[in-house]
Amino acid sequence: MQDKLTLMIPGPTPVPETVLMAMGRHPIGHRSADFQKIVKRTTEQLKWLHQSSSDVLVLAGSGTAAMEAGIINVLSKGDKVLCGDNGKFGERWVKVAQAYGLDVEVVKAEWGQPLDPEAFRTALEADSTKAIKAVIVTHSETSTGVINDLETIAKHVLAHGSALTIADCVTSLGACDVPMDKWGLDVVGSGSQKGYMMPPGLAFVAMSEKAWAAYAHSDLPKFYLDLGKYRKAAADNSNPFTPPINLYFALEAALQMMQEEGLEAITTRHARHRRAAQAGMKAMGMPLYAAEGHGSPAITAVAPEGIDAESLRKKVKERFDILLAGGQDHLKGKVFRIGHLGFVCDRDVLTAVAAIEATVQELGLAKAPTGSGVAAAAAELAK
Amino acid sequence: MQDKLTLMIPGPTPVPETVLMAMGRHPIGHRSADFQKIVKRTTEQLKWLHQSSSDVLVLAGSGTAAMEAGIINVLSKGDKVLCGDNGKFGERWVKVAQAYGLDVEVVKAEWGQPLDPEAFRTALEADSTKAIKAVIVTHSETSTGVINDLETIAKHVLAHGSALTIADCVTSLGACDVPMDKWGLDVVGSGSQKGYMMPPGLAFVAMSEKAWAAYAHSDLPKFYLDLGKYRKAAADNSNPFTPPINLYFALEAALQMMQEEGLEAITTRHARHRRAAQAGMKAMGMPLYAAEGHGSPAITAVAPEGIDAESLRKKVKERFDILLAGGQDHLKGKVFRIGHLGFVCDRDVLTAVAAIEATVQELGLAKAPTGSGVAAAAAELAK
Repeated sequence: MQDKLTLMIPGPTPVPETVLMAMGRHPIGHRSADFQKIVKRTTEQLKWLHQSSSDVLVLAGSGTAAMEAGIINVLSKGDKVLCGDNGKFGERWVKVAQAYGLDVEVVKAEWGQPLDPEAFRTALEADSTKAIKAVIVTHSETSTGVINDLETIAKHVLAHGSALTIADCVTSLGACDVPMDKWGLDVVGSGSQKGYMMPPGLAFVAMSEKAWAAYAHSDLPKFYLDLGKYRKAAADNSNPFTPPINLYFALEAALQMMQEEGLEAITTRHARHRRAAQAGMKAMGMPLYAAEGHGSPAITAVAPEGIDAESLRKKVKERFDILLAGGQDHLKGKVFRIGHLGFVCDRDVLTAVAAIEATVQELGLAKAPTGSGVAAAAAELAK
Repeated sequence: MQDKLTLMIPGPTPVPETVLMAMGRHPIGHRSADFQKIVKRTTEQLKWLHQSSSDVLVLAGSGTAAMEAGIINVLSKGDKVLCGDNGKFGERWVKVAQAYGLDVEVVKAEWGQPLDPEAFRTALEADSTKAIKAVIVTHSETSTGVINDLETIAKHVLAHGSALTIADCVTSLGACDVPMDKWGLDVVGSGSQKGYMMPPGLAFVAMSEKAWAAYAHSDLPKFYLDLGKYRKAAADNSNPFTPPINLYFALEAALQMMQEEGLEAITTRHARHRRAAQAGMKAMGMPLYAAEGHGSPAITAVAPEGIDAESLRKKVKERFDILLAGGQDHLKGKVFRIGHLGFVCDRDVLTAVAAIEATVQELGLAKAPTGSGVAAAAAELAK
């Protein structure tokens, strides 16, 4: 049905009317005092979201641009990095690091499994010459719905003494607790279409003082992604290059909504939705793809047995106007993913479970009495 | 007065209501068939705008991102390039090229003067070893309001035989004729907040087959700005990284408006506005900054004698809610700039001239009878 689509994908998430209306305003000049006020305010709001006193810089770009900027601004050619890889995004950061001639040691885990913090500890402890300059970790791996133990990995990096932690928090920031300063994260990359409840187009990179110290002698070539230019402009509440003004309007509105809800409430909501989605799927006899206890609060990947995940996903859209995400790469057809991050309320999660359940019934593929999924989800939502 | 601001800066330009409303829609999934239709349609529209059969790729970014992508995708470390520099943007492309270790020969002209095509011809003819791999030219130099003779420079590059022409058409595309194929341009960079009549946030790079041949052996590091990834995804009407979906909605609406107006009508309108702005300023005794006959159809820079340009500009905003642009770098206080590109009608230009004239009178700084400027502008608009 036209205009009825509900997004339950891991970005873009649904966007609040307030944010859409802010975005639809006439642009103003980006070198004006009025715009400087917006930059100043959103910078403060971003620090609040990152629980950090670090600079949080705003770029026109995708989450990949944020992560690439984070990597190439603190490293130099030939530098050794450890890079976690247990899904499509971990894999991508390996490729980014290799594209710039870094010496990448990959710490792998199977898709669906979390990265093993011990593997990082071992590699870091063995590094007596302090050759490892940075550790790159994906916090919430969007492709598999796995949350990695960033906190523990960051602790091992701190124990190493000199390496930096570069964290892909694209689908974790605004969905779970990411206390940048407390955990000692040096670079945090994120994107607007996730926990921010905004359309895509803005990329965010937070940089610790230790990261800036590394920036000072980083020799990888960059210009548009040169964060030093953004830091210099930000000191004057400005941007080095024409910013996406309307997305800034949206950012201000979205962050205000987030502040009104509060960080703890946001985290609790996402945790509740994770529980409800997981319980609903399990009650329907649908196995989760992420290893037990390692599911992301942002997204639940489901690997239905004896059902083509892609057909199910398409049918849910056709019948109920709910867009779920499919599996990526070798998971295509084997997995579907329920995005429950950003502007998602209890009703949305309940509805998604109900729609999946009704569709499975309609297809004659139900493995449990219809209603089991909704009952289980509702019970979790009530807790 | 709140919400009354009219933008007369060289980007963002005013944005049509139709475009703002398209942008304010709820986002859809960027991996959906519905979004593929938008990518397919806008790609066709972009080829029309570029008068080209080349790929036109869409990135989340600013005009600088477009130009950097254009440069780093067709060149390799140590490559020799000629780079025109007669203003802030020419200067910027020199810096981008240097940041990537290119061997840059700068072809300079004073700010306010156009680049001399003969200087390019001489350098290219002297290059018997074919060391020059590319020539970088800013078509409309936004900082000075000068239009460079890109057509003639591109001819000299074609005569050289192997060098590529990389053109910054950020403020010229959609304001004057830029027939990419006819002129033999290899790379054309542009940005959404200019002739496109959109908010900022999208960058466009068009690449000729000759540019793609150079891409094949380009060794400069890149990932987010790697145009090969965009080309591959575009073949499937998709994007390699999450695109700014709502700006795509806006793009589709804006390009449809442009197609309805027609390329020739758009060019004629901008030429008329250039004439009117220039005539209005001259009639008021305000000298133009750009050398006679070399003013851009997108922007008119004015260097008022005996008047602080910055005070005048601020007064015009305060009194009449019209935002003009100031001078950049050493031109601050010496020059103001009237942006007349994008979504600008005859009324806007007439109003800007009238407001400047009324402000000069109010300040007691008029050098000609009040009304002279409007009369001269009106006469040009009537032609």
